[in-house]
Amino acid sequence: MRIVLDGMGTDGSPESEVSGAVRALRELENDLEIVLVGNQKILEAEVARHDDFPLDRLHFEHAPDRVLPGESPASVLRNHPDSSIVRGLLLQKEGNADAFVSAGSTGAVMAASFFILKPLEGVDRPAIGTVLPTAKEPVLMLDAGANVDCKPHHLVQFAHLGNIYAQDLLRREHPRIGLVNIGEEPEKGDELALETHKRLARDPKLRFVGNIEGSQIIQGNYDVLVCDGFVGNVLLKFYESAAQFIVGYLRGHLERAGARVELDDALDVLDYSEYGGAPLLGVNGVCIICHGSSSPNAIRNAIRVAAQAVRTSMVEHIARELRSKEPA
Amino acid sequence: MRIVLDGMGTDGSPESEVSGAVRALRELENDLEIVLVGNQKILEAEVARHDDFPLDRLHFEHAPDRVLPGESPASVLRNHPDSSIVRGLLLQKEGNADAFVSAGSTGAVMAASFFILKPLEGVDRPAIGTVLPTAKEPVLMLDAGANVDCKPHHLVQFAHLGNIYAQDLLRREHPRIGLVNIGEEPEKGDELALETHKRLARDPKLRFVGNIEGSQIIQGNYDVLVCDGFVGNVLLKFYESAAQFIVGYLRGHLERAGARVELDDALDVLDYSEYGGAPLLGVNGVCIICHGSSSPNAIRNAIRVAAQAVRTSMVEHIARELRSKEPA
Repeated sequence: MRIVLDGMGTDGSPESEVSGAVRALRELENDLEIVLVGNQKILEAEVARHDDFPLDRLHFEHAPDRVLPGESPASVLRNHPDSSIVRGLLLQKEGNADAFVSAGSTGAVMAASFFILKPLEGVDRPAIGTVLPTAKEPVLMLDAGANVDCKPHHLVQFAHLGNIYAQDLLRREHPRIGLVNIGEEPEKGDELALETHKRLARDPKLRFVGNIEGSQIIQGNYDVLVCDGFVGNVLLKFYESAAQFIVGYLRGHLERAGARVELDDALDVLDYSEYGGAPLLGVNGVCIICHGSSSPNAIRNAIRVAAQAVRTSMVEHIARELRSKEPA
Repeated sequence: MRIVLDGMGTDGSPESEVSGAVRALRELENDLEIVLVGNQKILEAEVARHDDFPLDRLHFEHAPDRVLPGESPASVLRNHPDSSIVRGLLLQKEGNADAFVSAGSTGAVMAASFFILKPLEGVDRPAIGTVLPTAKEPVLMLDAGANVDCKPHHLVQFAHLGNIYAQDLLRREHPRIGLVNIGEEPEKGDELALETHKRLARDPKLRFVGNIEGSQIIQGNYDVLVCDGFVGNVLLKFYESAAQFIVGYLRGHLERAGARVELDDALDVLDYSEYGGAPLLGVNGVCIICHGSSSPNAIRNAIRVAAQAVRTSMVEHIARELRSKEPA
């Protein structure tokens, strides 16, 4: 299995990417090969700083250009055909790799994936999934920001995409699907939530458990949480920053109280990087998007998730699922 | 000054309400009088359990009925004319009181306020404001759930309502207004956010500081945060529950590590009840809505906020502001 890793994505590139790749090659299954895409000279120099890992399973694909933050996602293909994102996705498209992992601009990776990998039949809008820590098991929330101004049928598609991801990647046999809403009752919500609720409730292929209020999100009594990309994006970013703020605040409080306590361990459960990046679901390929601030560990985990998606044939599973739900 | 307090609202009524009223009478300004509305016998019996407070400033208004959770808000006036909510609001409407505080059903209080107090001229939809703790000063977020499916002009009205509240109640001289959005740039967002951004940016009476991403909410570099009631409701409930979860999680971690640490003090800053209830803004009167789970301290603080709104003539201030922004 070959995973392409964009070597030029993180704020600390290529150090984080190379360290993450080295860890993955050391720690994950032996059939894993990694193709580092980016400026080959720079990448090779960084790799030379590491030893004691299976070098024969690390390959390079030279891509002299990179997409810079703030560039228009829609014009990435035209303006940056030699970027690590475009070259990396083409490797997968052409059958020379099985998955793509990048910590580059989310908008650019999404747009390039849309045009290169293409959406699967039956998918109007690919969605970004993101794994959230909860009081119980981690859950998948989607859409986390790829799509605003959604219609009910888009949210139903998100539910189907998340349903398969939860089966294949989170190992939930019959994923419970919840809908973000402002009340538990079916008659609560805005127009989008009201109509989406009805459609999810009558979908025989989904185990819909109803509306999930803001206060229930953290309880985690569901496996997949469906929402519009506006709400999902605000929630996700708020969760990350609020967790950091609260932990930092308590840390300060404990220090002032003279308590010598190590909180870093405790933070692991609240640490997104443990869950390995955000899958772009609904395209004809495996694409995992990481934070620009990803640590080597986060990169390693994203590679692990990508490998698992390949191993479980997640994309074929999604394609099959979507085909079989077409009206006869 | 007379504040009406619904004695039958909280889950622990009337104990929390009466204790909160007693604290308010002991601790707040001497010109404060409180009218407890509800089943007078029950209320009097509860009051008899307290002493050492100025009994002459506590009054009763008998209301034999109460609105139960789950009842249709729209029919409260018709079905429960003798409820504590309706009787309490009528006292204010008829000029026999200056403000109303209730921990009863939010929907019922909102609907009854709408029909009894009526919206101010220029307000299409009254909004619920809520004070959020941030890394800096507390901020006002609105709408926290009164209105879904908003149009841009509704959000602009919320901005004006919040602007006055922040001046009069949060003591911010020139409140900074932010818009919840999925990116900092003006061209980011869904249709509602895009158009609202334009209107806020060109409004000469508002100090608009731009879009606030999910990750920036907790930073608190603004005074008023404007959003649709769907997003606001989900965010508010999520914030409360996530803060409780994270603190509980860390508490467990510390205990397992054998650390003897008192976190309760630290939690005060994250405790909504400190900020005293959620104002319903845009109606012709002062109405403060509290959590059903409000503690006596939360009730006391809500009374304090109601008194401050009366003292600063907030409603007249809002009415003046809205009149002066009408097109000539």
